[in-house]
Amino acid sequence: MSRLAVVIGDPTGIGPEVLAKALAAGLATDVLLVGDLQVWEEAQRIAQVRVMAKPASRPGLVTREGVPFLEVPVREREWKLGTMSPAAGRAVAEWLKEAVRLTTDGVADAVVFAPLNKQAIIRGGHRVRDEYELIASFVHVDDHDEVNVIPHPAGDSLPAGQGLLWVARATSHVPLRDVPGLLTRDRILRTIKLAHRVAKSGGAASPRVGVAALNPHAGEDGTMGDEEARVIRPAVEAAVAEQIDASGPYPADQIFRMARAGRFDAVVAMYHDQAQIATKLLGFDRGVSIGIGYPFITVTPSHGTAFDIAGKGLADPQPMIQALKLADQLVRAGFMPRLG
Amino acid sequence: MSRLAVVIGDPTGIGPEVLAKALAAGLATDVLLVGDLQVWEEAQRIAQVRVMAKPASRPGLVTREGVPFLEVPVREREWKLGTMSPAAGRAVAEWLKEAVRLTTDGVADAVVFAPLNKQAIIRGGHRVRDEYELIASFVHVDDHDEVNVIPHPAGDSLPAGQGLLWVARATSHVPLRDVPGLLTRDRILRTIKLAHRVAKSGGAASPRVGVAALNPHAGEDGTMGDEEARVIRPAVEAAVAEQIDASGPYPADQIFRMARAGRFDAVVAMYHDQAQIATKLLGFDRGVSIGIGYPFITVTPSHGTAFDIAGKGLADPQPMIQALKLADQLVRAGFMPRLG
Repeated sequence: MSRLAVVIGDPTGIGPEVLAKALAAGLATDVLLVGDLQVWEEAQRIAQVRVMAKPASRPGLVTREGVPFLEVPVREREWKLGTMSPAAGRAVAEWLKEAVRLTTDGVADAVVFAPLNKQAIIRGGHRVRDEYELIASFVHVDDHDEVNVIPHPAGDSLPAGQGLLWVARATSHVPLRDVPGLLTRDRILRTIKLAHRVAKSGGAASPRVGVAALNPHAGEDGTMGDEEARVIRPAVEAAVAEQIDASGPYPADQIFRMARAGRFDAVVAMYHDQAQIATKLLGFDRGVSIGIGYPFITVTPSHGTAFDIAGKGLADPQPMIQALKLADQLVRAGFMPRLG
Repeated sequence: MSRLAVVIGDPTGIGPEVLAKALAAGLATDVLLVGDLQVWEEAQRIAQVRVMAKPASRPGLVTREGVPFLEVPVREREWKLGTMSPAAGRAVAEWLKEAVRLTTDGVADAVVFAPLNKQAIIRGGHRVRDEYELIASFVHVDDHDEVNVIPHPAGDSLPAGQGLLWVARATSHVPLRDVPGLLTRDRILRTIKLAHRVAKSGGAASPRVGVAALNPHAGEDGTMGDEEARVIRPAVEAAVAEQIDASGPYPADQIFRMARAGRFDAVVAMYHDQAQIATKLLGFDRGVSIGIGYPFITVTPSHGTAFDIAGKGLADPQPMIQALKLADQLVRAGFMPRLG
């Protein structure tokens, strides 16, 4: 059984309501919600479910009496549903900090958070790019990234336990100009191993990892770039030598079509947009993201605060349910979210 | 009325049969098929249509009596349906050369070709990357590229005449490493203008052109690359100053979602895979490709020879129909396929 510290999300977005729906659907693991009681009351009203807050300082099961809830007082409640708010950003950053503390203190095993709004956090005074960098600042980590998981686009045609497609990338938030110089055999190999580890921990018995090329047509036998022969293929071969079911490099415009057809459980991309162009078209908003590089597991739905539908009770709780489920599964599988 | 020189395609693939189906569906423009009579007989049998070859040396209408057909003798008929064949590659290269000659001689206005197989052409002895480079070699052109057109993924929600999504790219068959150095304001501007011109000639009254960024998150205010501010935004502004409805740069992982939602008629990508990852997921195989950089219009279905279904009469003729229709439309609109 795992113990999850769960941030209720930005109070102006759909986070609290999808979390209320997700918990009402049932959950067989210990949780401790972190947030504001008034926001949680409202979330239940919007979601039309009853999952009352039980004041607590440690994770526990959701029961008929409610859900364990750690209240972190809000200094200024200057926000309104559906509108980006620096005050809400400051509040949710506090809650996230508390969830991280619970985890580093050993009270919880992992952090799960309902959607935050990065603009709210930044305008709230945090000098970070996004919520991942905020977490990194709490635990003094420099190098971090995320792995994205989407419902497998091959869907029902896959064997049980292969319902997810994992996407990891060898480089991430760097200028495209810097990508070729950053790609080494070792860096690509560690990303292949990361994709293998996380997919396996997440339920794929023997993950089939497809590795993308860097250049058009995979370099076409070296006539359009040499990274395929020089670093990518050697990384794939090294992974295979370690008994990982890796293959590639495949042309970037083919690998996601192959994945969609069910050929892979995980894809390793060489750079940010190579991964994101495809995953955003294939169902990013229905997936979840796993933080990598922190001393604990973090999982969140990949979708945002969806201000346009916040407060309407329309938001789909499936990604939130998937985030809680995957966090539990990754903790129980002993997944270590290190980069390499 | 336009006059199209139409290559019947690689005889081992689905080219001849989709062309037979397309012509049987009716066509209101002059055509001259270029190929082999025996292959064409077989194609009609496979497609279960009757469009008899009428020996001719000039384009004309398809009538009850058949379709104007220029036979180019085949030296060695060593091929079989569904299998890549160097002999077929050599034959189809001859037919393509003849179609190009008809066009440069002024007998035809444009070249249309049913799918060829680049491996067959290469193994057949032509030292080229693909059929586009083969055409380039016939007319002594160095710099050429293609624009891809797919059925607009926003589909029926669009106004009439906006049923297509056009995708052009500022750089193409070059190593990814070279892309940032090749991107100049002028090069991006000429691609925006090309996308505007071709979409307009193809039927979009006032094409909305979305321009992609180069770096993750469009560079995030210059923290991850400066190309957005330095070359892409100035190119968009210059296009707007020339009355083109251009906007951007948009993050690459958002622009194709925006396009899918109906926001653009054309997308300008910065590099090959940025365009191709998305268009191949969004329906590349149902689209057509327009050759750019030649002294005449060339149009072909984007799909390949589909050896797995060749000869079975199963192949969808829609892209072939679209290719013939667009070639006619582009000729009548006076589209000049120059790069800039």
